[in-house]
Amino acid sequence: MRDTTQALYIQVHPSDNVAIVVNEGGLPAGTVFDSGLILKDAVPEAHKVALTAISEGAAVVRYGVIIGHALKEIPAGSWVHEEILTLPQPPELDQLPPPAAHQHCIDPLEGFTFEGYVNDDGTVGTKNILGISTTVQCVSATVEYAVKKVKAELLPRYPHVDDVIAITHLYGCGVAIDAPGAEIPIRTLRNLSLNPNLGGAPMVVSLGCEKLQPARMLPSSTLPVLTSQPYIVRLQDEEHHSFGDMVQAIMKMAEDRLVHLNQRRRVTRPASDLVVGLQCGGSDAFSGVTANPAVGYAADLLVRAGAIVMFSEVTEVRDAIDLLVARAATPEVAEGLVREMEWYDRYLQRGAVDRSANPTPGNKSGGLTNIVEKALGSIVKSGTSPISGVFGPGERVTTKGLVFAATPASDFVCGTLQLAASMNMHVFTTGRGTPYGLAMAPVIKVASRTALAERWSDLIDIDAGTIATGKASIQEVGEQIFHLILDVASGRKQTCADHWGLHNEFALFNPAPIT
Amino acid sequence: MRDTTQALYIQVHPSDNVAIVVNEGGLPAGTVFDSGLILKDAVPEAHKVALTAISEGAAVVRYGVIIGHALKEIPAGSWVHEEILTLPQPPELDQLPPPAAHQHCIDPLEGFTFEGYVNDDGTVGTKNILGISTTVQCVSATVEYAVKKVKAELLPRYPHVDDVIAITHLYGCGVAIDAPGAEIPIRTLRNLSLNPNLGGAPMVVSLGCEKLQPARMLPSSTLPVLTSQPYIVRLQDEEHHSFGDMVQAIMKMAEDRLVHLNQRRRVTRPASDLVVGLQCGGSDAFSGVTANPAVGYAADLLVRAGAIVMFSEVTEVRDAIDLLVARAATPEVAEGLVREMEWYDRYLQRGAVDRSANPTPGNKSGGLTNIVEKALGSIVKSGTSPISGVFGPGERVTTKGLVFAATPASDFVCGTLQLAASMNMHVFTTGRGTPYGLAMAPVIKVASRTALAERWSDLIDIDAGTIATGKASIQEVGEQIFHLILDVASGRKQTCADHWGLHNEFALFNPAPIT
Ligand SMILES: [Ca+2]
Ligand SMILES: [Ca+2]
Ligand SMILES: [Ca+2]
Ligand SMILES: [Ca+2]
Ligand SMILES: [Ca+2]
Repeated sequence: MRDTTQALYIQVHPSDNVAIVVNEGGLPAGTVFDSGLILKDAVPEAHKVALTAISEGAAVVRYGVIIGHALKEIPAGSWVHEEILTLPQPPELDQLPPPAAHQHCIDPLEGFTFEGYVNDDGTVGTKNILGISTTVQCVSATVEYAVKKVKAELLPRYPHVDDVIAITHLYGCGVAIDAPGAEIPIRTLRNLSLNPNLGGAPMVVSLGCEKLQPARMLPSSTLPVLTSQPYIVRLQDEEHHSFGDMVQAIMKMAEDRLVHLNQRRRVTRPASDLVVGLQCGGSDAFSGVTANPAVGYAADLLVRAGAIVMFSEVTEVRDAIDLLVARAATPEVAEGLVREMEWYDRYLQRGAVDRSANPTPGNKSGGLTNIVEKALGSIVKSGTSPISGVFGPGERVTTKGLVFAATPASDFVCGTLQLAASMNMHVFTTGRGTPYGLAMAPVIKVASRTALAERWSDLIDIDAGTIATGKASIQEVGEQIFHLILDVASGRKQTCADHWGLHNEFALFNPAPIT
Repeated sequence: MRDTTQALYIQVHPSDNVAIVVNEGGLPAGTVFDSGLILKDAVPEAHKVALTAISEGAAVVRYGVIIGHALKEIPAGSWVHEEILTLPQPPELDQLPPPAAHQHCIDPLEGFTFEGYVNDDGTVGTKNILGISTTVQCVSATVEYAVKKVKAELLPRYPHVDDVIAITHLYGCGVAIDAPGAEIPIRTLRNLSLNPNLGGAPMVVSLGCEKLQPARMLPSSTLPVLTSQPYIVRLQDEEHHSFGDMVQAIMKMAEDRLVHLNQRRRVTRPASDLVVGLQCGGSDAFSGVTANPAVGYAADLLVRAGAIVMFSEVTEVRDAIDLLVARAATPEVAEGLVREMEWYDRYLQRGAVDRSANPTPGNKSGGLTNIVEKALGSIVKSGTSPISGVFGPGERVTTKGLVFAATPASDFVCGTLQLAASMNMHVFTTGRGTPYGLAMAPVIKVASRTALAERWSDLIDIDAGTIATGKASIQEVGEQIFHLILDVASGRKQTCADHWGLHNEFALFNPAPIT
């Protein structure tokens, strides 16, 4: 199956002195690339080749950063593998170098806009959705029953409303409400209700006897509509004399909200109103060389255009934290990064989970020499911008630019927390393939390989595998992603997930035990 | 609002020397009961009155067990509150007395039957359901999409099949698969697939790259159908060229199963084939004197009829564990009870959650003098039978009689774990009211007060509030529950939850951290 007619490698960053061989099955010694480079060794697929001679002790640079130093002279065209590299250990969290003096200058990118829904609080939605929040798991089946009826009987009469979402979840009185960490699911629920795509007009269904009362979950001070209009339906209230009554009460309040939301129209807004969350799931050896770098390119464009771009997934960035700290825009951001890593280290320790030996044998045979290189493949999604803010799990992001929103890497949990952080667009890269989607924000899925993009043509929005086959550059796919974000945010194009209505459950991150 | 025409108290157990005043607002000193007892003090609603004179140092008995000793002579008709009782501390887990010599003799109850579906493995279903299991959260939106189509397009052609259920959940590769405690969600998923109401014919939808592979979740050796027929649809398989293909593959396998399940018919089976799970949720001061004792009476009937009856909710029994150990049928059962309590103590400690100070001020003003009395109100659901087995969270119950299936008290989690334990009927008591239901097994909801049963007449199946109003005895309501279980298990009557299709999400108990 090897394409012997065109030998291909990918250089992710201009300063890299190694590149990745992408031909299926690898390439034999003697192979000549278009650039003139000649392979001195056979190089397996997804492994590194030296682009230039690297002298003994010199830095080996990938993703624009040093991933090790040469143990001996490495001639151009050599296979660069773990035996000929020093393996730097990432520094301990308490021994990180201070952030580099702010060397990045953001070059503003102007003139890019999308058509969005402006909310009273200044946030902008890419959709116009009625969100029905819930304080406790006990009401979820009732709310799902009511939402089905609202969608069947009411929504068709309000054509400018995109959807009705039951924000149901498994949080209940079994969570010790004052336990360490219990604030995370509570603020997640609060901030989900405040997501820009819900039009600043959520409503809440409560049971009545739950520990997490509506006023604690979503104080009326958080949105103008909550002080001016009723926003809570309490199932245990005496006025509900049957299940039918409860459903009617939910439907009545839902219709009031639908009337309001239906009056809204999209208006032209600068790209700086976008809040884009980045995530990967089901990664493969190509994720770090095709899909993730292309997303990183798009992330840089978005940051230059003034948007908020968030990256997350603590366990995937943990091993390159020194490199992130070096990108911190301020000392406070550097401290925030360390604080979130420490929190997660302790959380895993409490559960007796080791961060498993990294990289795994599978990673090494896949070409990842060390843990820094592995983490780089994930954080390359974040592009090259300085990091301007750090937010804990479920916190609402308030800083423009590239921010780190701490979340687990687990796909549904990360997505839910990014929605709480106020994400109005999601970009999800995948190598192995996963039919991922969110109800609250559009999800653009980027495949790392053309084979997946072709096989799952009705699930994958962007094929970044063209980078590996030489059909497109990282920049070209990155620009394609950037423009698709603007089109989808404007309602001009629909994602595959939205076409099918393929939407995950919300998954709260609850670090506290349940009783 | 006080009913001055009839003063009422409830004596739960014949040996009790205190009873609970149930009149709204309590009763004044001088009140005369039908029994001739005269109140010496005013007694608040839900508080205790001495039925006989209790001499200084004598035992105060409630629920048939000693809840304390009199600090001074207590005349008949006195209010028995915490100031005049010693407050026994429950013994430490390592200092429990050995189980009492087996004093309980089970008096067999014969001739009670129901109409059930017999499975190949000898278990018996109360419903005939197609269950579609999933290994990983990534496939859940796809499976829910497919199940919606199966229910709309296929199920109507197979009238002897009751339902099609997507067993979706939030477990994914973010859970460290070998972490302590991770076996719990895995065995829960396995045993949910083996629930008797799924006809011994589940199927599994897998993504492909997940850590929890189908063969680990549900080995083909667990059921005959799994060795004789294909049972796995893997979304990442090369043969699926689109989302449409995946959905078609799920539907095709589902239809094979529907053909098989549709040939089954109910047959008459002894009540000993029932596996009844007991739970309470949204309890009030009356739960422990009306609904729970009535369920306890039904539990005794079921155990006498040879059924499996399971009670659960570790944190609600923890403070009366010495009394449960005394009911252990064997030393192994006593050890099992202690083992499960210890496990949970450690789990809560790891999360820095104290078992909160018990009883709360609210409990005390509600009439609960001490932690033993509070726990007794919950475990009275289990009746008086000896405890014949103890099972960890998500384990399949294999012992007849009354068993303790360890679970959190959290309603959705407890229900899911009891289904994994092989429950085919669920009884749920509630005081405050919660619209609870399960898709996999019928749920009979018992209200502790008539006001709730009347207000929620289309959600509550049994009104145990009649015990407080004197309209019925504990025995009468207990027999009513017993007979309703047989009717519902036979498909002759439908529960309120099933009438509305009010079914909770599955909620896995995952004690391990997520990454
Ligand atoms: Ca990832
Ligand atoms: Ca992820
Ligand atoms: Ca659902
Ligand atoms: Ca309970
Ligand atoms: Ca419960």
